[in-house]
Amino acid sequence: MPTTTATRMAQEIAEQPAAVRATLDALLPLRDRIRELAAGRRRVLFAARGSSDNAAIYGRYLLETHAGVLGGLVAPSVATHYRSRLDLSDAVVVSVSQSGATEEIVATQAWARDCGAATVGVTNVECSPLAGAADLALVTQAGPEHAVPATKTYLTQLVAMAALGTALAPDPHALDADLERVPDEVARLLSSPTGVDAATGALREASYSVVTGRGLLLGTALETALKLEETCLRPVRGYSYADLRHGPISVVTEGMTAVLVAAADGPMVEPLTALASDLADRGAAVVGIGGDAGFASACDVHVPGPDLPEALAPLGAMVPAQLVVEGLARALGHDPDNPRGLAKVTTTDPRSTR
Amino acid sequence: MPTTTATRMAQEIAEQPAAVRATLDALLPLRDRIRELAAGRRRVLFAARGSSDNAAIYGRYLLETHAGVLGGLVAPSVATHYRSRLDLSDAVVVSVSQSGATEEIVATQAWARDCGAATVGVTNVECSPLAGAADLALVTQAGPEHAVPATKTYLTQLVAMAALGTALAPDPHALDADLERVPDEVARLLSSPTGVDAATGALREASYSVVTGRGLLLGTALETALKLEETCLRPVRGYSYADLRHGPISVVTEGMTAVLVAAADGPMVEPLTALASDLADRGAAVVGIGGDAGFASACDVHVPGPDLPEALAPLGAMVPAQLVVEGLARALGHDPDNPRGLAKVTTTDPRSTR
Repeated sequence: MPTTTATRMAQEIAEQPAAVRATLDALLPLRDRIRELAAGRRRVLFAARGSSDNAAIYGRYLLETHAGVLGGLVAPSVATHYRSRLDLSDAVVVSVSQSGATEEIVATQAWARDCGAATVGVTNVECSPLAGAADLALVTQAGPEHAVPATKTYLTQLVAMAALGTALAPDPHALDADLERVPDEVARLLSSPTGVDAATGALREASYSVVTGRGLLLGTALETALKLEETCLRPVRGYSYADLRHGPISVVTEGMTAVLVAAADGPMVEPLTALASDLADRGAAVVGIGGDAGFASACDVHVPGPDLPEALAPLGAMVPAQLVVEGLARALGHDPDNPRGLAKVTTTDPRSTR
Repeated sequence: MPTTTATRMAQEIAEQPAAVRATLDALLPLRDRIRELAAGRRRVLFAARGSSDNAAIYGRYLLETHAGVLGGLVAPSVATHYRSRLDLSDAVVVSVSQSGATEEIVATQAWARDCGAATVGVTNVECSPLAGAADLALVTQAGPEHAVPATKTYLTQLVAMAALGTALAPDPHALDADLERVPDEVARLLSSPTGVDAATGALREASYSVVTGRGLLLGTALETALKLEETCLRPVRGYSYADLRHGPISVVTEGMTAVLVAAADGPMVEPLTALASDLADRGAAVVGIGGDAGFASACDVHVPGPDLPEALAPLGAMVPAQLVVEGLARALGHDPDNPRGLAKVTTTDPRSTR
């Protein structure tokens, strides 16, 4: 319900500069231990679900594009349902769960260790099963999160991904100056939410929405779509722009809203700018988050993003997207803190079906 | 437009028993060469987009659950846009493209070879760039496909995945008797399309649809969703049921149709049966494809699937889904052969943006 005081979700969004700062301080010093753990192992696989999975997607791209290390995503059902034995002796498996208690992720981590992997647990709860059983726990410092939609725990998971991705890069300190600027960039985006109300309005009018990005910001696009779906109860679809262009772009017509997420630099800005124009030609209302000046001018509504290099842009770009989601939920008369049918610790297989 | 003669798509769906037979005959004898190529390499990564990507998802699960070999999916943008150099010297990279001419997949295969991978190209066109440049080409024998929606080329890609997945299993012949039955099972499903009209009707009424499965049949669910979206121009979302349960199930309400895809055996039938009941409780019309008797009775509309073990069930389960898609496109007044805005050889980055 709309309230006159700030929602929990809004409060937790506002706590992010401090949460990011605390998490950087806690995790960057662990990069030597991450390197030791990964020594002699050739790849990093992530196990996660939901928002944590979207954080892991960023982690995978950061590893592959910045660190030159092969990444990938574990299929949890291979562990939990098929109980396959795979050789993971040359892998680090990074399991990501805000609560550290998501049953399938805890089980997948145990399976990975049995298969020979070194294990890293990324969680916001120090005394959780995931942290306790991992070879190395990266405990994010978001503090307790009460709203069901993950905001500060997601952003601090991205910090953990950045710690991991830089730890395994040839020069672990190459992005340090930019990492240090992230808390201030998050604060700046919170204090001047240009375009957020217009974006909320465009999404409110939409019969159907798509959210798209690619590469390092694909996770941001998918997380934005997930939050719109779960918190605003809107049918929405997140895509890599390559998947969207490959076919589903054919369903984009008048009455739809397309949200495009871009960094200010890197190889994706130009194709996303071209996509913005193409989607507008199809009659969609195009909302752009981030990008450069050319991207901004190709969008109907533009929400400025962070002044961060593409490798770290997800740590800022999610912030205006969170503001849009929180505002839209209220505008639609939903309670952002307690979306219908969602629990804070999620279960993918209810007990009776296991 | 509805026509009195069969659409190309319907004709090509009907050609599948012969296409599958010819592809089995062509590819199963290549299993020794697949084993030789993979000798000493520890993982298999797939590069694909669209329907081919959905075939690859099956390939990955088959490798991990049947062969005990770690699989994964390449992120093409890491090759084509970020131009990262990764160490793939212990990997086989399997690139899948019906035409063998999809630019980003051809480029990704070349990149994989430069990174040290052994390369397998899966394509329906023998003299294609993809086949020509691969260490080993698995050429599917679907014959020319004229309708834009992939049907027989998709099903024969699944045969290629089965050849690959069985080639690398401890006993490459363990599934041979079932593989030999696939053409007849496909023919049987075509000749008695029980429930297809009812399923088409349920989807026609839907304001929004979701399609879900998991594990070995996740690719079937995603391919069904993609076909509904591209061919019927319906907003639809494909999910792993674990992802659906994790959160987005909250958007499922009255007026929606949920399509569930299950094998007749294996660990996913029971949780999908429970999901069918839960979705019905939320007011969705539940269409089930495949599964067992319990699953069938939990669905509002049931379309029987193949009599094949879960490891091979995708080779049959897609057939009734194709019939539903083709029928729905006609019922909605669309031309199934030429969906709006789609081309047969797809481009994810239009030339001007490269």
